[in-house]
Amino acid sequence: MNIVTLNQRDIDFLLYEFLDTESLLKRKRYAEHSKETFDATIAGAKKIAETYYANHYQKGDGNEPKFDGKSVTLIPEIQDAWNATADFGLLSASYDFDEGGVQLPEVICKVCGTYIQAANSGSSGYYFVTAAASSVIRAFGSEQQKALFLHPMMDGRCAGTMALTEPDQGSTLSDIKTSAVLQADQSYRIRGQKIYISNGDHTLSENIVHLVLARIDGAPKGTRGISLFIVPKFLVNTDGTIGEANDVVLAGLLHKMGNRSATSTVLNFGEKNGAVGYLLGKPHQGLRYMFQMMNDLRIGVGLGASAIAYRGYLHALEYARERPQGRLPSNKDPMSPQVKIIEHADVRRMLLMQKSYAEGSLALCLYAASLAEDSKTASSVIERNQASALLDFLTPLVKTFPSKYGCISNDLAIQVLGGSGYIREYPAEQLYRDQRLNPIHEGTEGIHGLDLLGRKVSFNNGESYELFISQVEQTLADAADISQISHLVPSIREAINRTHRVTESLLFTIKEDPDLGLANATIYLDMFGQVVISWIWLKQAVIAARKLSTYRSENSVNEYNFYQGKIYAAQYFINRELPQTIQKAELLGVNESTCYEMCDEYF
Amino acid sequence: MNIVTLNQRDIDFLLYEFLDTESLLKRKRYAEHSKETFDATIAGAKKIAETYYANHYQKGDGNEPKFDGKSVTLIPEIQDAWNATADFGLLSASYDFDEGGVQLPEVICKVCGTYIQAANSGSSGYYFVTAAASSVIRAFGSEQQKALFLHPMMDGRCAGTMALTEPDQGSTLSDIKTSAVLQADQSYRIRGQKIYISNGDHTLSENIVHLVLARIDGAPKGTRGISLFIVPKFLVNTDGTIGEANDVVLAGLLHKMGNRSATSTVLNFGEKNGAVGYLLGKPHQGLRYMFQMMNDLRIGVGLGASAIAYRGYLHALEYARERPQGRLPSNKDPMSPQVKIIEHADVRRMLLMQKSYAEGSLALCLYAASLAEDSKTASSVIERNQASALLDFLTPLVKTFPSKYGCISNDLAIQVLGGSGYIREYPAEQLYRDQRLNPIHEGTEGIHGLDLLGRKVSFNNGESYELFISQVEQTLADAADISQISHLVPSIREAINRTHRVTESLLFTIKEDPDLGLANATIYLDMFGQVVISWIWLKQAVIAARKLSTYRSENSVNEYNFYQGKIYAAQYFINRELPQTIQKAELLGVNESTCYEMCDEYF
Repeated sequence: MNIVTLNQRDIDFLLYEFLDTESLLKRKRYAEHSKETFDATIAGAKKIAETYYANHYQKGDGNEPKFDGKSVTLIPEIQDAWNATADFGLLSASYDFDEGGVQLPEVICKVCGTYIQAANSGSSGYYFVTAAASSVIRAFGSEQQKALFLHPMMDGRCAGTMALTEPDQGSTLSDIKTSAVLQADQSYRIRGQKIYISNGDHTLSENIVHLVLARIDGAPKGTRGISLFIVPKFLVNTDGTIGEANDVVLAGLLHKMGNRSATSTVLNFGEKNGAVGYLLGKPHQGLRYMFQMMNDLRIGVGLGASAIAYRGYLHALEYARERPQGRLPSNKDPMSPQVKIIEHADVRRMLLMQKSYAEGSLALCLYAASLAEDSKTASSVIERNQASALLDFLTPLVKTFPSKYGCISNDLAIQVLGGSGYIREYPAEQLYRDQRLNPIHEGTEGIHGLDLLGRKVSFNNGESYELFISQVEQTLADAADISQISHLVPSIREAINRTHRVTESLLFTIKEDPDLGLANATIYLDMFGQVVISWIWLKQAVIAARKLSTYRSENSVNEYNFYQGKIYAAQYFINRELPQTIQKAELLGVNESTCYEMCDEYF
Repeated sequence: MNIVTLNQRDIDFLLYEFLDTESLLKRKRYAEHSKETFDATIAGAKKIAETYYANHYQKGDGNEPKFDGKSVTLIPEIQDAWNATADFGLLSASYDFDEGGVQLPEVICKVCGTYIQAANSGSSGYYFVTAAASSVIRAFGSEQQKALFLHPMMDGRCAGTMALTEPDQGSTLSDIKTSAVLQADQSYRIRGQKIYISNGDHTLSENIVHLVLARIDGAPKGTRGISLFIVPKFLVNTDGTIGEANDVVLAGLLHKMGNRSATSTVLNFGEKNGAVGYLLGKPHQGLRYMFQMMNDLRIGVGLGASAIAYRGYLHALEYARERPQGRLPSNKDPMSPQVKIIEHADVRRMLLMQKSYAEGSLALCLYAASLAEDSKTASSVIERNQASALLDFLTPLVKTFPSKYGCISNDLAIQVLGGSGYIREYPAEQLYRDQRLNPIHEGTEGIHGLDLLGRKVSFNNGESYELFISQVEQTLADAADISQISHLVPSIREAINRTHRVTESLLFTIKEDPDLGLANATIYLDMFGQVVISWIWLKQAVIAARKLSTYRSENSVNEYNFYQGKIYAAQYFINRELPQTIQKAELLGVNESTCYEMCDEYF
């Protein structure tokens, strides 16, 4: 079977019909670009994805990074992928021309990355984590730090990590214990252990920069006493040449269920004399810096999850179209030929579910990327602020919906393949294993539920929430005027009303008793996610229905089918998934408390 | 962390409180047994599970069976496990004394097997598949076949396989192509390829008996032309000694996502002169014979799924009690110590979900095993027939609920562990991979949905269905009288009424248009499963509440906690999961047809 990653027609739809990406060309920052440069960049990234990432998808899974006690060995294909990615400029594509970047919009860069994630989620991490770390240095580093560390990270001479988590602390970064002691030369000595550090050691690049969260000696307890440090694997001389090894030791590799071509490490900082670290920005601002990047990382996780689901869906679709098996219930004649399994209604159900999750998730994430873009480059302050508020509000959903429903989607891809789905001779099971990481990293559903219900909905007196609702209202108004899809409007409107009622009642309880009021926050998050994706699908259906209304028989039948598919997927999600929010709203409306009341000893 | 498999207190509850296993001692077949022999057998199996199966759970995953082109090599621990299982008599424990068995009830044997499945699902397969194959020969074999093949299978000298599936046919056995040609000596020559044959080759035993479905030359097309053959790996002389190799060749191994210590094989029969096969029973009755065993196999899959979910749950519970992280939302003091994660309401939600799925599934499966027992040994014909009808009706749910919700349960176990759940240093991810097989083998949800809605509910004019309802009514009546749980009654009653309405309307549609009427059969199956498990939980809650009503402070606090846990889990499932059937019933009530109407080209 072919390697399929994303549906290019859908990418074009999302960029140029669902989003108005072409209008970015009117903004000063993109004046030198054109739709052609956007598309050529994406085509180049797609080529890299197919040539240098998809090629070792299975091989990388069966040949994990090896640690012999001294150094880490990867399969050579990963080096080729790293080089190709860096050479194409993807590590700094969004940066300004005068920084050495390509000055491309957020959303174009994100599409490039999504192709690579779809081709090989594990190996894509070397590039993604480096890009994330580099963007932190870009935002908060001094000129000297940028010269020594950022520039090599932009061209692939240096890779990066985010060294946040510690063994005794996972989701609560405020409890980290790694220490930093100021030296006479204004550098720090860092001591502590970090765990689950992606790509914490390898030889893809001549150096690795670890961004380490640590607490400066004497800093206040809690979130306001944490600082961020640049801790290179090899010290760098002032002329940029690589010096001696820093006191950073790889204690061991962790062995993941999926994403096996990526290294997951335990790193010991400062076991001997202390690892040399350089304060990034100001003291005690580390978490604030990290969280400024976090939205972007979370869109990245959402996109990665969408990508894996998408690839699984396309693979299952191809299989269902080729695999003959069984007959329809109405046909009792054993002499008749078997049908292709896509002819079974239940197989179409599984495909339509996957389509609605994968395409819906991708649309949501690219919408979020366009908000990130607008928050920086929209022409007016109001637009920038609104985009920023909306993005901030939606981020818990952008992270969690694709991750949760991506797992369900890849589960369904296995089920469509049946026995073939369970064996490593087909890619479905590996996609399923890869995907399972996404509900964990960059915040679990539990964490994001608390964020959404405990902070985001009431933030700024509920302004962000209202802003989101106004977006939905606009789409509902558009759809109500289109006969082909107007029947989808009432159930979304009711869902919005239910969400209002439930939110008010929960916010009331939270004021009285935060533990009780937030006990079902994960259910709230899930309900809200289904409402958001219903809206995303209605938005797509509006565009598709409008295109179809002007469709003439001389037009491409593929286009007709594509738009019909969008409308069916919207109808699927709104008719069959959105109603699940009714039960969730009822549960939340009475704040059902069985789990809250259940005590440890009863288990 | 300790190896935990099942909660022994719960096993005792299920056997002696939920089911009345002790009453079996009054039946003639079990007159020589006692509760002590039952318990001693289970304790012995548990010991074997912990000593010989759990010991290589992780090692077997990392060291798959190897095929060098000639023979298959397994890690030595699997041989020890095989020997211990055979020596303990588990391969024939349910057979009569005069056959060489231990004459134990179905439900006791199933509990023994469940401990082994919980300890190591992959390696347990050698024992389970052999037992299943042996039971077919026991039921349909001639005396000579039993002497030559069954007896060695009972003591472990010979293993067995079920060779049903072929490359071009998965779920539709009627389309198999393997051929059988009668020879002058009344044996047959078998030719064809079989795929996904569990344990199709190994050297654990001196011989392997393949039970092969094949079509005798000239047999009618379809399900009524398929026969069942005994095809040994090595021919067996009439004195029982092992002869030369049969024409059965291992074409290759398949590499599964989980259950890696089991061999999954492609077998070529009769590439040279034809494999020698012996007809089992009568010609053209092969599928009927297989399906008589299928109920038992499906209970086995349900139990295996329950076991994996159960182990995952107990592991997550232990982790949640030990792992400190974060603080409750009401506590903003970073100086305060972190709480154990079980104190977070959302973690308790994930644990309670797992408890409700794992314990609920196990209870359902053991109830099914008790029906299997009653169908054979209950004192009256009416009781035997009723048990048989009820078992037949419930089988699609016994197979599918534990499999589907087992996957969700093991997914939640990973989520409770967070990053630790995703790495192979902890067992959660392996359990998740192992579990994913269960929704596939022995019939997918799609197949069982068609079986339930297309056959079982209307079978015998709906008598089996009514029989099931009468069981539920009895439990509802019991619960209505108990104040602690009577609030759980109305929602189950409403669910039953909804199910009635939906069933009637779907049966009406099926008559008119079977393809349309069965298009949502998988949703129907899922809805019905949630109703059944609600009933199973209410049944457990009735017992627990009665025990609690006589609880005195001098009684064991552990007992109090155990019964409270049962009531909370029942309340969890009935308050929070059962209401999901409302939306499913509405969808089924209108027979929502988006998936049915969606056509191939629109994807």
